[in-house]
Amino acid sequence: MISDKMKELVKNNSVIREMFEEGKKLKKIYGEENVFDFSLGNPSTPVPSKVKDSIIELLENEKQNIIHGYTSNNGFEDVRDALAKSLNKKYNTNFKSDNFIMTVGAASGLNIVLKSILNKDEEVIVFAPYFSEYKCYIENYDGKIVVISPNEGNNFVPDLKELESKINNKTRGVIINNPNNPTGVVYDESFIKKLSEVLMKKEKELERDIYLISDEPYREIVFDGKEVPFITKYYKDTIVVYSYSKSLAIPGERIGYVIVQDEVKDSKDLITAITIANRVIGCVNAPSLMQKVVSKCTDITCDMNIYDKNRKLLYSKLKEYGFKCIKPEGAFYLFVKSPSEDDKEFASRAKKYNILVVPAYSFGCKGYVRIAYCTSFNTIEKSLKSFKKLAEEYGIYKK
Amino acid sequence: MISDKMKELVKNNSVIREMFEEGKKLKKIYGEENVFDFSLGNPSTPVPSKVKDSIIELLENEKQNIIHGYTSNNGFEDVRDALAKSLNKKYNTNFKSDNFIMTVGAASGLNIVLKSILNKDEEVIVFAPYFSEYKCYIENYDGKIVVISPNEGNNFVPDLKELESKINNKTRGVIINNPNNPTGVVYDESFIKKLSEVLMKKEKELERDIYLISDEPYREIVFDGKEVPFITKYYKDTIVVYSYSKSLAIPGERIGYVIVQDEVKDSKDLITAITIANRVIGCVNAPSLMQKVVSKCTDITCDMNIYDKNRKLLYSKLKEYGFKCIKPEGAFYLFVKSPSEDDKEFASRAKKYNILVVPAYSFGCKGYVRIAYCTSFNTIEKSLKSFKKLAEEYGIYKK
Repeated sequence: MISDKMKELVKNNSVIREMFEEGKKLKKIYGEENVFDFSLGNPSTPVPSKVKDSIIELLENEKQNIIHGYTSNNGFEDVRDALAKSLNKKYNTNFKSDNFIMTVGAASGLNIVLKSILNKDEEVIVFAPYFSEYKCYIENYDGKIVVISPNEGNNFVPDLKELESKINNKTRGVIINNPNNPTGVVYDESFIKKLSEVLMKKEKELERDIYLISDEPYREIVFDGKEVPFITKYYKDTIVVYSYSKSLAIPGERIGYVIVQDEVKDSKDLITAITIANRVIGCVNAPSLMQKVVSKCTDITCDMNIYDKNRKLLYSKLKEYGFKCIKPEGAFYLFVKSPSEDDKEFASRAKKYNILVVPAYSFGCKGYVRIAYCTSFNTIEKSLKSFKKLAEEYGIYKK
Repeated sequence: MISDKMKELVKNNSVIREMFEEGKKLKKIYGEENVFDFSLGNPSTPVPSKVKDSIIELLENEKQNIIHGYTSNNGFEDVRDALAKSLNKKYNTNFKSDNFIMTVGAASGLNIVLKSILNKDEEVIVFAPYFSEYKCYIENYDGKIVVISPNEGNNFVPDLKELESKINNKTRGVIINNPNNPTGVVYDESFIKKLSEVLMKKEKELERDIYLISDEPYREIVFDGKEVPFITKYYKDTIVVYSYSKSLAIPGERIGYVIVQDEVKDSKDLITAITIANRVIGCVNAPSLMQKVVSKCTDITCDMNIYDKNRKLLYSKLKEYGFKCIKPEGAFYLFVKSPSEDDKEFASRAKKYNILVVPAYSFGCKGYVRIAYCTSFNTIEKSLKSFKKLAEEYGIYKK
């Protein structure tokens, strides 16, 4: 009944989504406030009031058949124009509306990019730990995922020697996710420069275009004054994939974009391909009203201090309780070493205390769990007692 | 640079979408009111005011982080529950919330259904003329499209003998689109019963599940008191794919659903597969706010009399001018026989008069064009002079 490919996916259903569904069940039993659900990156920061204001303004002032109507497959032109102008101002880039394809979130953006560039058995490289959905997206188009090992010794900043050794005549692209999900690490300019050098060297050596696909849903979530380099400046064959899910706290609305800059070889053809891919995978166009909304919200984000407050408390307390984790510099995830070797065991022991975390084997990095601290501050506070008990159970909490 | 599959698609870019883009260019040159754009099914009926009211009500009364937040991959449970109740009342069915998967429109719904059921080289049967995107959707999952010839002699109601002869051990499903795009024909109960009999017979004979995939974006657009049979009652292995694009005139919002009824064999597994497919093709969930909106608008539609008025005027006038076309009973398309054999020639000659129509070779039916009369009544009225001139040029207008 079910296709072989889907059977495989059903068997390995997303650990993150399973936790999310489990969380909903536990909340029904124990009450919302007694379940500490750190499984899903569902933002808790208030949606900026400008989102609501923009929707109402559009409903009051624009033609309903336009704001709810089909748009070009790459999106409203005025929307793409506004985004180009905003980014050019912010990052000193030189984009035009035609460089943009509005998408059904970043997930769909990645899919239409991969559909546009991948032939069967061609390879896409990811750095472990990596967002587990990348594997599905790549395999949707019969591509092969090639994993660069988690570089635990260097704060999970990837080993570029290993990258270089794994680029070959089948390599079509490399996905980076900066700030990183699930580690919270931010790759700095020096790393991006070195990464670009490796890619340029291999492009030349292999006489092959290698895309750097930069998945940036967490672009604006950085702490301690860290900066996220804007990748198109460093590497010509960059494709940017962005989502407003986190920056405006509207992940359910499925709105984002893809940028292909003019410097990419045959950029026009690639843009056409991605635009058509958007149509034929059935998205047709990014949700129309939300396209207009984000174009009115180009210069705002949620209050990211809320995440910073969560981060500071949870990180300091988990360290105090004896857990080992790297200090996140961006996104809203804590990557915590499992006190026992088996991250699944850790995750299910945590569940006894109504703490839901995602075992990191699903991110290609055993022995860790991911804690999405994009919850309310209250959830963090209330969860501490349970984390402490968990630490005591493992015997790692030294008073 | 671009994958081989996409190269093919770029080469054969959608004729409909090309016309849409062309129309936008012509409108810039000649002015909006002087271009008669019948290319795209972009509804012209006013969006029901309840849509706007519902959005505002949701923005005022609900938690922003909920209405804009991630939902389960199959959608908000309360939304699915409301839809089930509404359909049960309307069609005397017995659906529960779990039978529904909320989708990014019907196009995406079809994609996730096909992804869930198709193995390489398995076949999906369509009736020509058929909505041209079906071919892309089927081939996205390495399936093969099998076309039943256009039954010109019988008002384009498909020949079921040919269907029966083309069902084999590779057949996975049959797509019907009722009311039909591009012909405007409505398949009546007697046809649906006969179709179901053929499918049941072949299921038994081949010991194979064959899905009837019912693509129903035009379900509510019917004229002259015609009725559209609700397919699940007639054939057990039915999968319904629906969109609010036309019923609420919000095609840009990308909101629809898939129904898998309990009677489908292993329906739970299939629902799980479709839900996961929704996630892994990158849709993740149907746009969240619009999910809530449609659940508040279950019992309303646009004013379909507007289309009826357009239909009556255009049909009677085109007949008067000497064009041959079948009288549409549903949807908002007129299927007109090309006065010359070559429909592309007809479409490009029409363009000289700023009339944009879609040549039907792209629907698998040469010698016809599709006229989407979901425009303003004024556009229809103003276009008549040009249609008359066109008829005169072909020498078919007998005064």
